[in-house]
Amino acid sequence: MSLLVVGSIALDTVETPYGRGDDILGGSATFIASCARYFMEPVRLVGIVGSDFPEQYIKFLTECNIDLEGLQIREGEKTFRWGGRYDEHLSGRETLFTELNAFQTFDPVIPEAYRESKYVCLGNIDPGLQLRVLDQIRNPKLVVGDTMNFWIAGQKDTLLKTIKRLDVFILSDSEAQMLAGTKNLVKAGHRIIEMGPPVVIIKKGEHGALLMTKDELFTAPAYPLKSVFDPTGAGDAFAGGFLGWIGKTDDTSFENLKRAVVYGNVMASFCIEKFSVDAIKNIHIDDIRNRAETIRKISQFDTP
Amino acid sequence: MSLLVVGSIALDTVETPYGRGDDILGGSATFIASCARYFMEPVRLVGIVGSDFPEQYIKFLTECNIDLEGLQIREGEKTFRWGGRYDEHLSGRETLFTELNAFQTFDPVIPEAYRESKYVCLGNIDPGLQLRVLDQIRNPKLVVGDTMNFWIAGQKDTLLKTIKRLDVFILSDSEAQMLAGTKNLVKAGHRIIEMGPPVVIIKKGEHGALLMTKDELFTAPAYPLKSVFDPTGAGDAFAGGFLGWIGKTDDTSFENLKRAVVYGNVMASFCIEKFSVDAIKNIHIDDIRNRAETIRKISQFDTP
Repeated sequence: MSLLVVGSIALDTVETPYGRGDDILGGSATFIASCARYFMEPVRLVGIVGSDFPEQYIKFLTECNIDLEGLQIREGEKTFRWGGRYDEHLSGRETLFTELNAFQTFDPVIPEAYRESKYVCLGNIDPGLQLRVLDQIRNPKLVVGDTMNFWIAGQKDTLLKTIKRLDVFILSDSEAQMLAGTKNLVKAGHRIIEMGPPVVIIKKGEHGALLMTKDELFTAPAYPLKSVFDPTGAGDAFAGGFLGWIGKTDDTSFENLKRAVVYGNVMASFCIEKFSVDAIKNIHIDDIRNRAETIRKISQFDTP
Repeated sequence: MSLLVVGSIALDTVETPYGRGDDILGGSATFIASCARYFMEPVRLVGIVGSDFPEQYIKFLTECNIDLEGLQIREGEKTFRWGGRYDEHLSGRETLFTELNAFQTFDPVIPEAYRESKYVCLGNIDPGLQLRVLDQIRNPKLVVGDTMNFWIAGQKDTLLKTIKRLDVFILSDSEAQMLAGTKNLVKAGHRIIEMGPPVVIIKKGEHGALLMTKDELFTAPAYPLKSVFDPTGAGDAFAGGFLGWIGKTDDTSFENLKRAVVYGNVMASFCIEKFSVDAIKNIHIDDIRNRAETIRKISQFDTP
């Protein structure tokens, strides 16, 4: 099965109570692709960087066996940069700067060879660009999209058009509350389903994730970590694990979406243990399976 | 099996975005006992009220088949009153007034017939009073205790003595964070276990509950409600469902504690649908079973 990932590729400057990373590899497409590749191939990436993008990061993506035909390297321009600082509990973060650079004029041209991709993941980018991608792909089996509060606030009309064309819409709890206008996540999920996407996944951080359709609901806990180092990329790692599992199994039944959510939670748990992609560079497949098994173990009980 | 419940019995004045209740029946012992009684008998109550305590509430407790031999009615005094107002999302609450009244001089004398109770639930009261209760009971199979932030802040030394004598310590997420000095709930749970109680349950509201021992962990989601009317008593209803199930089955294995947590979540979900005990007055046992089955359904998945 093939997976097309479109999103940002960034150089992040991240401050947490545990340390600071400068110009470290980040971006939604980066995290999605480098997590999905544990499950399936080919994973195809469409994104843009400047000519300052470090060779070592290209090398990393290549070694991940990610197809980079769709990676645009804009000569003479700089790569998208984001800087953020987390509070002492890692529960809130402040954006220190956003330099769009090459990303400002990003036109996601999907290479011909990618247009038949069976699975598509639209990482968090401008919903107008997400629409542009959807117009170029032919007959995907499943389109999954993510977003962020910035687009809900500033581009709601376009976002609403985009999510009508998604099969699965992934967003965080605070984004779901914002978009649906209610604090109650069950109600929020139902309201968002009424906006178009038949499947909505609400990411709840340490509380796991909620998978909803009009008639069904499933919730899986997060993998229980005693310490978190850097939450950056957790949501994208979730999407990567989720789509990776679906791509691997080529099964979009609700039962299999449930398993995919578990693998999403597993990949997010690895991601937040170190800066950038450091903790998702070299995961042994057994460790992925073990964490999924742990999530099963801590949430299962027999019928009372 | 017998269950002894000690805690407050109150007349609450509650304001939520959906309405206001004046001098409505509340208190930790009230909610615990009136939920546990769906599962087991006898449920024995020790508490204090003033002579202004409405006859209709005595009638309610009696009709619940709760043993009231331990209920002290202090002539000429008033019942403990609490007033609180919830914010628009029901996520925060402000205490408007606390009038201890008869509760101020409450000495929990355990009737002779209660001292052999096999199960004991210490509702949220002064940890010094909780100790007084423990000194009077003989050989309980399981002692469960609850607390609140007020005692963690103001009576920490006594609280630490008390929890050393508990088999199961139930507290909310914010209380666990406060007592353990960390935002991470898994870490908080382990730190609290080191303080004495072999089993800790952290209530996470809409995110369900976390059950922990030194070596094991289990998490069950809340019953998915699309609307909440009044959160007052949810934690006590949880304790009532939890202990009710354990009392009914007389089984304190970890596997059965897991089921008990599910029944705790079920009873909490009923409690918050109306003011006071209105939604836990007349629950059909099938509805309790159905909600437990729903929680099972939304959290179970087969091994990937």
